Amino acid sequence: MSAPGTIWGVGLGPGDPDLMSVRADRLVRGARHVAFFRKAGRAGQSRKIVDGMLHPQAHEIPMEYPVTTEIPLEDPRYNACLSEFYEDVAGRLRDLARAGEDVVVLCEGDPFFYGSFMHLYTRLKDDVPVRIVPAITGMSAAWTASGAPITWGDDVLSVLMGTLDEETLTARARDADALVFMKVGRNLPKIARALDAAGKADRAVIVEYASMEGQRMTPLLELGERTLPYFSIVLVHGQGRRP
Amino acid sequence: MSAPGTIWGVGLGPGDPDLMSVRADRLVRGARHVAFFRKAGRAGQSRKIVDGMLHPQAHEIPMEYPVTTEIPLEDPRYNACLSEFYEDVAGRLRDLARAGEDVVVLCEGDPFFYGSFMHLYTRLKDDVPVRIVPAITGMSAAWTASGAPITWGDDVLSVLMGTLDEETLTARARDADALVFMKVGRNLPKIARALDAAGKADRAVIVEYASMEGQRMTPLLELGERTLPYFSIVLVHGQGRRP
Ligand SMILES: C[S@@+](CC[C@H](N)C(=O)[O-])C[C@H]1O[C@@H](n2cnc3c(N)ncnc32)[C@H](O)[C@@H]1O
Ligand SMILES: C[S@@+](CC[C@H](N)C(=O)[O-])C[C@H]1O[C@@H](n2cnc3c(N)ncnc32)[C@H](O)[C@@H]1O
Repeated sequence: MSAPGTIWGVGLGPGDPDLMSVRADRLVRGARHVAFFRKAGRAGQSRKIVDGMLHPQAHEIPMEYPVTTEIPLEDPRYNACLSEFYEDVAGRLRDLARAGEDVVVLCEGDPFFYGSFMHLYTRLKDDVPVRIVPAITGMSAAWTASGAPITWGDDVLSVLMGTLDEETLTARARDADALVFMKVGRNLPKIARALDAAGKADRAVIVEYASMEGQRMTPLLELGERTLPYFSIVLVHGQGRRP
Repeated sequence: MSAPGTIWGVGLGPGDPDLMSVRADRLVRGARHVAFFRKAGRAGQSRKIVDGMLHPQAHEIPMEYPVTTEIPLEDPRYNACLSEFYEDVAGRLRDLARAGEDVVVLCEGDPFFYGSFMHLYTRLKDDVPVRIVPAITGMSAAWTASGAPITWGDDVLSVLMGTLDEETLTARARDADALVFMKVGRNLPKIARALDAAGKADRAVIVEYASMEGQRMTPLLELGERTLPYFSIVLVHGQGRRP
């Protein structure tokens, strides 16, 4: 039996291919098997980032999410369905590694920071070699795009998902000096109410498509009725000690 | 008069040069003027990261901190002294930019995340072109080194400086699901007490020198009396929803 291959969870960063790490760039260009998540019928953001970089003979493995919006998050079938999906694709990657093949799994942003690859990682790490390449997060690109540092001195930074309930969002928004809200989309009105209750709405800015085509920054209070894309982050900058 | 040059705040990432972005790598290799912070008599971590990468004719501009431990943080002279230092080095870089020269300023981790370059940025941005290259943070390298994802589902992540008072550390440690403590060093006993009070000490791990030579992970409760290096981070991993 040959030695097993390695499953690489390769963080691609926030979107601009120039912001990939040197290591990620090398792994992506050299990969024989390239796996990536996408919604059925969509190109997949991580696959888009590496457009033009893959070896012409690279074997592509799209991993298509079974559900996203059809079943509500609270429904137990949501988790069951996702779990079955992750088992299934983990199985395919495990088989490849056991056959001695290395596989590069493309990950948006940093793989270990609210990433999908984490669900494969836990299912694979005890069976075959798995290695992770960290990356620039979407939030780093967002505060860079905002033109102002996110944290100073001993500012407390909290990262909050827009999917949290309003009470939690409000309490955490009150307690921290600097804030990052991810998974914004339909949760924006809730986030805006929480920020208002915490007295921070006037300092909040929205960054869409950080480091990607279409990058745009808007103060929260000036957004109006526009619907935000999936790649949106709300920021409140810290104001700590600055000599 | 010639067009002004650009001051580049270039994030180098957590330490391993392979984790620099493709853009940072290109800018560093091509730079004619390279500025970096260091303590008097030390090599400077950011300068070390790019060892062997600079152009042989590159003009190096070490920016040496006047104080670090001699004057206590609370003393007004601490801020005054640092402020004068930042004004002074900002002036040197401004002059270079006005003379049409581009300058690459080497930054540890991500420049806009508790970085020193921020103090030059605020002093320069209205006078000459300044651009920022985001980077992989030390904390991303730390959780990657820990072998476990930092956040799942809608976990709240809080980033805390060890320089905060114990009461604040305890309260914020209670309220968040996942935690990152930076500026650990002499603050470790205080951080450990806060984690203990928050019931999370048994889940905490220390990562020293993430992605650098000497990388090491130790559960907080197993550290003993060892003194930690400047490049140390304490992590508590989130345990949110995982299908
Ligand atoms: C499931 S999380 C994945 C985070 C990713 N692993 C990272 O390190 O940034 C997806 C959320 O990240 C945020 N996001 C990621 N990249 C972004 C970008 N380039 N611009 C704006 N938002 C981004 C959005 O809020 C989105 O809802
Ligand atoms: C002034 S902050 C700078 C943070 C930096 N701008 C970043 O993005 O990571 C310095 C603190 O970052 C942490 N740190 C940065 N890089 C690290 C690494 N590679 N390993 C461990 N800790 C690191 C340490 O806690 C250190 O006290």
